[in-house]
Amino acid sequence: MEKQDFMRHAIALAKNGIGAVDPNPLVGAVIVKDGEIIGEGWHARFGGLHAERNALANCRTSPKGATIYVTLEPCCHYGKTPPCTEALLEAGIAKVVIGSRDPNPKVAGKGAAILREAGVEVEEDFLREECDALNGPFFHYITTKRPYVAMKYAMTADGKIATVTGASQWITNEESRYHVHALRRRYPAILAGIGTVLADDPMLNCRLGDEARNPIRIICDSKLQIPLESKLVQTAKDIPLIVATCSKDEEKQAALTAKGAEVLVFDGEKVPLPALMDRLGEKQISGILLEGGATLNAAFLAENLIQRAYVYIGAKVFGGAAAKSPIAGGGISLPSEAADLHLAEVQTFGNDVLCVYDFPKQEAK
Amino acid sequence: MEKQDFMRHAIALAKNGIGAVDPNPLVGAVIVKDGEIIGEGWHARFGGLHAERNALANCRTSPKGATIYVTLEPCCHYGKTPPCTEALLEAGIAKVVIGSRDPNPKVAGKGAAILREAGVEVEEDFLREECDALNGPFFHYITTKRPYVAMKYAMTADGKIATVTGASQWITNEESRYHVHALRRRYPAILAGIGTVLADDPMLNCRLGDEARNPIRIICDSKLQIPLESKLVQTAKDIPLIVATCSKDEEKQAALTAKGAEVLVFDGEKVPLPALMDRLGEKQISGILLEGGATLNAAFLAENLIQRAYVYIGAKVFGGAAAKSPIAGGGISLPSEAADLHLAEVQTFGNDVLCVYDFPKQEAK
Repeated sequence: MEKQDFMRHAIALAKNGIGAVDPNPLVGAVIVKDGEIIGEGWHARFGGLHAERNALANCRTSPKGATIYVTLEPCCHYGKTPPCTEALLEAGIAKVVIGSRDPNPKVAGKGAAILREAGVEVEEDFLREECDALNGPFFHYITTKRPYVAMKYAMTADGKIATVTGASQWITNEESRYHVHALRRRYPAILAGIGTVLADDPMLNCRLGDEARNPIRIICDSKLQIPLESKLVQTAKDIPLIVATCSKDEEKQAALTAKGAEVLVFDGEKVPLPALMDRLGEKQISGILLEGGATLNAAFLAENLIQRAYVYIGAKVFGGAAAKSPIAGGGISLPSEAADLHLAEVQTFGNDVLCVYDFPKQEAK
Repeated sequence: MEKQDFMRHAIALAKNGIGAVDPNPLVGAVIVKDGEIIGEGWHARFGGLHAERNALANCRTSPKGATIYVTLEPCCHYGKTPPCTEALLEAGIAKVVIGSRDPNPKVAGKGAAILREAGVEVEEDFLREECDALNGPFFHYITTKRPYVAMKYAMTADGKIATVTGASQWITNEESRYHVHALRRRYPAILAGIGTVLADDPMLNCRLGDEARNPIRIICDSKLQIPLESKLVQTAKDIPLIVATCSKDEEKQAALTAKGAEVLVFDGEKVPLPALMDRLGEKQISGILLEGGATLNAAFLAENLIQRAYVYIGAKVFGGAAAKSPIAGGGISLPSEAADLHLAEVQTFGNDVLCVYDFPKQEAK
């Protein structure tokens, strides 16, 4: 095995933490001595040991003099666990190969510097892009203090999210719809509009068997129209529900709270999305899957709040000048005003296609 | 090399005829003796020798006792050339391995039967699906007597073909747009609506260097509004132009004819598309690339005249409730009314995606 193979193995290990570490990053580590892997580990759950400590704990032989490959710069501060730099020094690690830099610009490079001062050889930015790709959402959250927003929609091959009568079941096949549930497991929260709630009375949960983790459900509901008997409210004691509103109806707010929902109240006529994102960030919600209708999608787009889009394309055409497409609102006037998206991935599910796009990065706050 | 390899080589040879054989089919042939290829050929141009005859003519040693792999059942009737079955018998071919059956149900199997009667071993349906895929358009044309229609459009990742102001340059990148020109080379004709002509004054030609063949341009122009000074009309003496209309304005018709265009006149208010397809089929136009706007696309869809769709998806979102999507018209009411398309191909061009869909087959007429 070569250097790249060790780091790619660490990347693969990191992915074991998907759905369990938010709002922490995914991290994997591999310890190598005399060209052989003697220990490996990953960050497995929020609050648990970091990847480096897990790898050290799993070593078959002494890690003294060994090289560790770690996908993210080791931490050097006391958080939920003591700094990993200390653990590496205590274990006598001779060389540290680092993928991603610490996303917090105030901390980046400090872990590496501490190790170097103690005489450890440090190599940074190794396969950095691949390592960074593990944690796009986390990096966004750390640098902007707002959740990473991934917009998801399903449309026909002629760009419709419903027929002219508003019917939309189904545009995509079962395999695609199953994949959406896997996506829901990857994001700590789902956000939808009140229109979706009133039309479909959805659960917005993750149906993938027992081990599946249900995301926090967030509803944008400016006028507080959510019915107390909706499935979302009825299950609020089991699966967290946040209702964002501008309504001052304290009786309805209290009724929702009594059912287990959390109500976030904002000034104005419509829930101000940037302020909502700030509040959700403060609540340590690092990522959101936006399953909105065309109007909510347009509002997020207009505020530049979208980082990624999952576009499922069903193998059908509906036609209809009056049939809705995925993003409504006012729209832009000229193609040159549109951001250039990056096609991150294309996948097929039978005759369906999933295109994943990354939006241009925003500046750090 | 194994049997499959010989037939796949014949399929590859057949593709050398792309753009030059319409309305004939693409055919390739490989002659094998003692496990070695001793001759190969393909149908290279309309009116030229068939693949079998080209392969025989190119044999390095005597084809007596050899096996021929041919992607389409050899013809047994006098057309532009004498029947291939005769040539194979004269050459002393011992075995014929056939991919596709003759698409004309009245002729299918006759070539094989003649060879068998003469004592030749015949194997049919070998890699038939792969061979059939060479000639979907040709088979459609032979069985329905109408051109194979491939609808092409470019849309954004949110299903728009233009911004709310109607601007559409550009949705896709240069590589995608180059690919469209390659498509134009594969179809004998392009069809567009008068709206496109009035808006863009396009050439609708194939810009792929000197060897490129320009398709016949067909314009649906019910009221005969096409300007005499449009690029299409100005170039009609060099690149064929057909204008389909319901207008009885004989003066304008004569002016267009004088410029080199052909005018097809139909009864009614709007050009009846099924009748137009019949007329184009009679004119031996076997395939059409439909580069219509949303209204023309809807009209073709409503008449079940589409066999394939090339959907280019640009890596942009425009937004806009009023922005057009690729197929307008009345549309269907329920998703279950939509035909199930078959995803034939997915390709990426940088950040753009091309999805190719096949529509369900129509019954033979």
